[in-house]
Amino acid sequence: MVHRVGIVGASGYTGAELLRLLAGHPELEVVYATADSNAGAAATDLYPSLAAAYGDLEFAAFDPGAVDGLDAVFLGLPHGESQKVVPRILDRVGHVVDLGADFRLPADAYAQWYGEVHGAPDLIDRFGFGMVELFRDEVAARVHVAAPGCYPTASSLALAPLVADGLIEPTGIVVNAVSGISGAGRKLAATNLYAEREQNVVGYGLLTHRHTGEIEHALGHVAGGPVQVLFTPHLVPMTRGILATCTARPAVDGLTTAGLLDRYRAYYADEPFVVVSDEPPQTKATLGANTAQVTVRVDPRTGTVLAMGAIDNLVKGASGQAVQALNLVLGLPEPTGLPSVGMMP
Amino acid sequence: MVHRVGIVGASGYTGAELLRLLAGHPELEVVYATADSNAGAAATDLYPSLAAAYGDLEFAAFDPGAVDGLDAVFLGLPHGESQKVVPRILDRVGHVVDLGADFRLPADAYAQWYGEVHGAPDLIDRFGFGMVELFRDEVAARVHVAAPGCYPTASSLALAPLVADGLIEPTGIVVNAVSGISGAGRKLAATNLYAEREQNVVGYGLLTHRHTGEIEHALGHVAGGPVQVLFTPHLVPMTRGILATCTARPAVDGLTTAGLLDRYRAYYADEPFVVVSDEPPQTKATLGANTAQVTVRVDPRTGTVLAMGAIDNLVKGASGQAVQALNLVLGLPEPTGLPSVGMMP
Amino acid sequence: MVHRVGIVGASGYTGAELLRLLAGHPELEVVYATADSNAGAAATDLYPSLAAAYGDLEFAAFDPGAVDGLDAVFLGLPHGESQKVVPRILDRVGHVVDLGADFRLPADAYAQWYGEVHGAPDLIDRFGFGMVELFRDEVAARVHVAAPGCYPTASSLALAPLVADGLIEPTGIVVNAVSGISGAGRKLAATNLYAEREQNVVGYGLLTHRHTGEIEHALGHVAGGPVQVLFTPHLVPMTRGILATCTARPAVDGLTTAGLLDRYRAYYADEPFVVVSDEPPQTKATLGANTAQVTVRVDPRTGTVLAMGAIDNLVKGASGQAVQALNLVLGLPEPTGLPSVGMMP
Amino acid sequence: MVHRVGIVGASGYTGAELLRLLAGHPELEVVYATADSNAGAAATDLYPSLAAAYGDLEFAAFDPGAVDGLDAVFLGLPHGESQKVVPRILDRVGHVVDLGADFRLPADAYAQWYGEVHGAPDLIDRFGFGMVELFRDEVAARVHVAAPGCYPTASSLALAPLVADGLIEPTGIVVNAVSGISGAGRKLAATNLYAEREQNVVGYGLLTHRHTGEIEHALGHVAGGPVQVLFTPHLVPMTRGILATCTARPAVDGLTTAGLLDRYRAYYADEPFVVVSDEPPQTKATLGANTAQVTVRVDPRTGTVLAMGAIDNLVKGASGQAVQALNLVLGLPEPTGLPSVGMMP
Repeated sequence: MVHRVGIVGASGYTGAELLRLLAGHPELEVVYATADSNAGAAATDLYPSLAAAYGDLEFAAFDPGAVDGLDAVFLGLPHGESQKVVPRILDRVGHVVDLGADFRLPADAYAQWYGEVHGAPDLIDRFGFGMVELFRDEVAARVHVAAPGCYPTASSLALAPLVADGLIEPTGIVVNAVSGISGAGRKLAATNLYAEREQNVVGYGLLTHRHTGEIEHALGHVAGGPVQVLFTPHLVPMTRGILATCTARPAVDGLTTAGLLDRYRAYYADEPFVVVSDEPPQTKATLGANTAQVTVRVDPRTGTVLAMGAIDNLVKGASGQAVQALNLVLGLPEPTGLPSVGMMP
Repeated sequence: MVHRVGIVGASGYTGAELLRLLAGHPELEVVYATADSNAGAAATDLYPSLAAAYGDLEFAAFDPGAVDGLDAVFLGLPHGESQKVVPRILDRVGHVVDLGADFRLPADAYAQWYGEVHGAPDLIDRFGFGMVELFRDEVAARVHVAAPGCYPTASSLALAPLVADGLIEPTGIVVNAVSGISGAGRKLAATNLYAEREQNVVGYGLLTHRHTGEIEHALGHVAGGPVQVLFTPHLVPMTRGILATCTARPAVDGLTTAGLLDRYRAYYADEPFVVVSDEPPQTKATLGANTAQVTVRVDPRTGTVLAMGAIDNLVKGASGQAVQALNLVLGLPEPTGLPSVGMMP
Repeated sequence: MVHRVGIVGASGYTGAELLRLLAGHPELEVVYATADSNAGAAATDLYPSLAAAYGDLEFAAFDPGAVDGLDAVFLGLPHGESQKVVPRILDRVGHVVDLGADFRLPADAYAQWYGEVHGAPDLIDRFGFGMVELFRDEVAARVHVAAPGCYPTASSLALAPLVADGLIEPTGIVVNAVSGISGAGRKLAATNLYAEREQNVVGYGLLTHRHTGEIEHALGHVAGGPVQVLFTPHLVPMTRGILATCTARPAVDGLTTAGLLDRYRAYYADEPFVVVSDEPPQTKATLGANTAQVTVRVDPRTGTVLAMGAIDNLVKGASGQAVQALNLVLGLPEPTGLPSVGMMP
Repeated sequence: MVHRVGIVGASGYTGAELLRLLAGHPELEVVYATADSNAGAAATDLYPSLAAAYGDLEFAAFDPGAVDGLDAVFLGLPHGESQKVVPRILDRVGHVVDLGADFRLPADAYAQWYGEVHGAPDLIDRFGFGMVELFRDEVAARVHVAAPGCYPTASSLALAPLVADGLIEPTGIVVNAVSGISGAGRKLAATNLYAEREQNVVGYGLLTHRHTGEIEHALGHVAGGPVQVLFTPHLVPMTRGILATCTARPAVDGLTTAGLLDRYRAYYADEPFVVVSDEPPQTKATLGANTAQVTVRVDPRTGTVLAMGAIDNLVKGASGQAVQALNLVLGLPEPTGLPSVGMMP
């Protein structure tokens, strides 16, 4: 039986990526797709890439009544919009999968990192944090999904086996990450222009990037206690891909690179979308795929553990991970319809 | 029933792309993959992108006996190698799909454009020219497939409706095309280095590029008579994608852009992998997909017809088209296992 | 004696490039730089690249009185603005160098290609068309300079030796050109976003791009009679660089590649900024430099002459060429302060 | 008086960049340029960018006698070659400026990081470490120059004001850096191919990159005692540019971002090629220029100091810095002939 799904906010990059992925999903069918300022436009006007599969799709203006009875609705909305839309649709559809940040954090952490009071705090607990590898039980136990952010996904998957076993100190963790420009969305800003990003690397959001709270939330969940991270994101001249390079101080003696690689392999042994590699992960190995690649090192000289994680920010870091979580809550095999092989070259 | 296939020459870019595409193909299973200098290497050493699907695949040294009984074998070999390998395997396997240039042209045209006598001219007729949209009957009538080159695919699909109906003069056709760097393969040459291709566009193979003969072959087939083309390829700083911009002189009066767009739509009405667009086609709309996008214009001011075609050179221009042709000869629905939605952004 | 110059419209890409070039010019000093919406901003806010030389520069709001007595004023304004500004400053300053399109074409050609009546037609004749190599006498004879567009510069320098000597037919000329994204300026449009231009090539302005008129103007000047061109520009994923690939029919018998290369070398023998190369020109060879590189071929098989020209669109195609023309009208050696070596790699 | 200089190893990227920079240097003239496997080739065959200034330059095979009496010789040789060449030329020329790693470190540190015994340890002390801002006295006191590596330059300039004043702990320093691909030189390796680097970020040399020793050497010199660094380099898809993101633990109480920015400004107040910026430095702001841009932050939440430095690896990180140091030892103003404005866009 094919499940009927809608996408509210389908004209942004995560929405377009959902359309791409769902075109190859045998069990989900997109029957409704909305846009805001692009309502009325053909999907192919914005994304001619969709022409062969969605030649007739026109973005509708959002109407809560139109989602009645859908099996699932994805939300690909700008920050702050989901908490307005969710109360209007939560009981009309089977499952809501929010790709925004609104339902990822507890209300207090949300207030701390986003600098505003949450508009629908009572609904947060109805969403599972959709980083399935680390929150599978929680996701399965709840009805709706808050799909995690891109940086938190790459960082948390890279560090999880370390914090799960208490192998590193929970403070002093440093995450440096680089991201392709698509992470900024389809926003008309000088900082997103080709001519200003090409041949250019720059850090941003120094000390205060909102994904810090989400990384600490995910790792804290795995660790079973507070974890503190200094997170520094950078833009690099590519469209997709995130690489997180993380350092931490060992909390136990005798760690070795070989030993940690074994632990990583054991930790992710049953995960279809996490590859533990001996070699440093390459973002391109994940391009277009729902796969994360991670590795780990121990440096006895400086007393440091180094972990790295690579993903495609629009797939494993957004739309693909959202589909994976929906597969789980729908009872489908998690990998259904999701590519695991990256596009290389 | 799943068909068992092999890839001889799997370590190059077209081989790796076959592995990527076949990982998502429900009816074909890769059971054999060879490499030459990379024999013995893990597939993931060269392409870590394959790790989630081919974690255990090791490239074998080629052994003709090993293909015995396979349903199909793809050849992804350097120029000139296929004509040596094909005689050794043609009767051992169900179908050979050659991604090289060796079996695309009649022997005399081959000698003209490649400057050497063909080594197995008697076998050429057993191969259909696998540009399915223009050669479907030929492909279906033969057992084996010579998958066309990347530039000929983009150019011929852009111009075919014009020559099919005798709407343009068969001489004076100019094809300017740009290609991503992957078209040059995984060759260690200074001209393929990142630092020398980035921020760089250059023409090459001026007047004599070998794909000229193939474009003339394809268009001549459609026209039912000789067609002459001046073809000028260029490298542009991207990995994948070809855009062919073609000009020709009208052979009939009264052509209009709207009229030609209608003809194009009619011509390609039943093709799952050709999109006729009003807007100029973008290479990125085809990225990772087996789809070609084409458009056409008439310029009364200068008396010129302008046609454009865009593809992903590694998919529709190589491995994807090869799978499409194999689907046809195997009696599968042509689109089986092939993505039609490009990766945008 | 250092000449004091102003830049009206200094916050766009051509303005910023003027600031870069003039920082290395020993005879010109920038004493005034204006912006519109960015008035009041530090130059380094928009272009941190300027920090070491213009750390204190703040963009002023334009005030005609502020240019009184300057030796020269560059205009880097959006289309249509120069014809409003020029009447207000023409008699206040020594020389105006307009980088916009407003004073390049005769009034009738302007109306044809820009679809509007020119606002200051009487002033057009006071501007020389600043493609110095082809219009040196005109530039030297007039006081002010209309710096040519980027595509016309690459195309006209590539074709000039052919039309100068009547070697090609003046109709049926086809110019296909590719440009880096900076040619579109610092405009906040989805088509200029990194994520939509990376890995993407697309034609635009099909049949009607305004630079067509300018190419025909320049070549007509050289030919001494009308020249007709079909011009098709494309965007390619790089920031700077234009490559024009031009085809034409020979007007005389017996042309050879070697003979034409000799003619090209003779034609440009005294030009410091035109390199005639045997090899196809690479845009990167011109990156950051005021140099154009050109080559030519004859194809007896199809009866075609092929000419190619490469430039950096922001230097030889805009700001560098403007400085070169100003050097000429100021009586300085033309190469003063202009780099001729491209940045490679 | 113009100084006559030679370049031994002129066909690599640092050699080509020297040729580019010296074409604009009023006091230095290149009279000799050698290559190894490219001996006999025209410089423009490898770098057509040089055509307008070095149209006749042919790379010579190296002959020690040919450098006799030159004022200076730059060495742009592969690792390990300089220690063979230097003994043969040191007393024939005024100054040697080595762009390789051979004379940067004391012999014991060299052995530690390069895993081999130095071939000419007695000569090391005749070279000053050419990071002029931090080693000006040493450079001025010695005759020859060992131009520092690219990563050490970006990292050390970012961290120097902190270690100079003992503001951070000398252990636990983490440097994450990204580099454009040109840093790997003109080496024909699969890892340098366009198609494998585009849309790809990867760490390399984990834990053991040789530049670690050089960073520790430079910072140790500034600190006046040992400094320990974990250095992790990454390749990002651009040709030029390095960004170093550094974290450390404060060694004193009460540090603030504003206070540290003031200290940085004071520390670099007289440096023409270091810009202290409030905003995070962008690599593109340094493109083609000899300028470094740095910033600093204090994070009270995690107890961390964050410093960042950006350079063009081929200019400030190699050839430009080498010229700056030579200017110093020749008694020329340090900025002579060196661009300080980056190419943006």
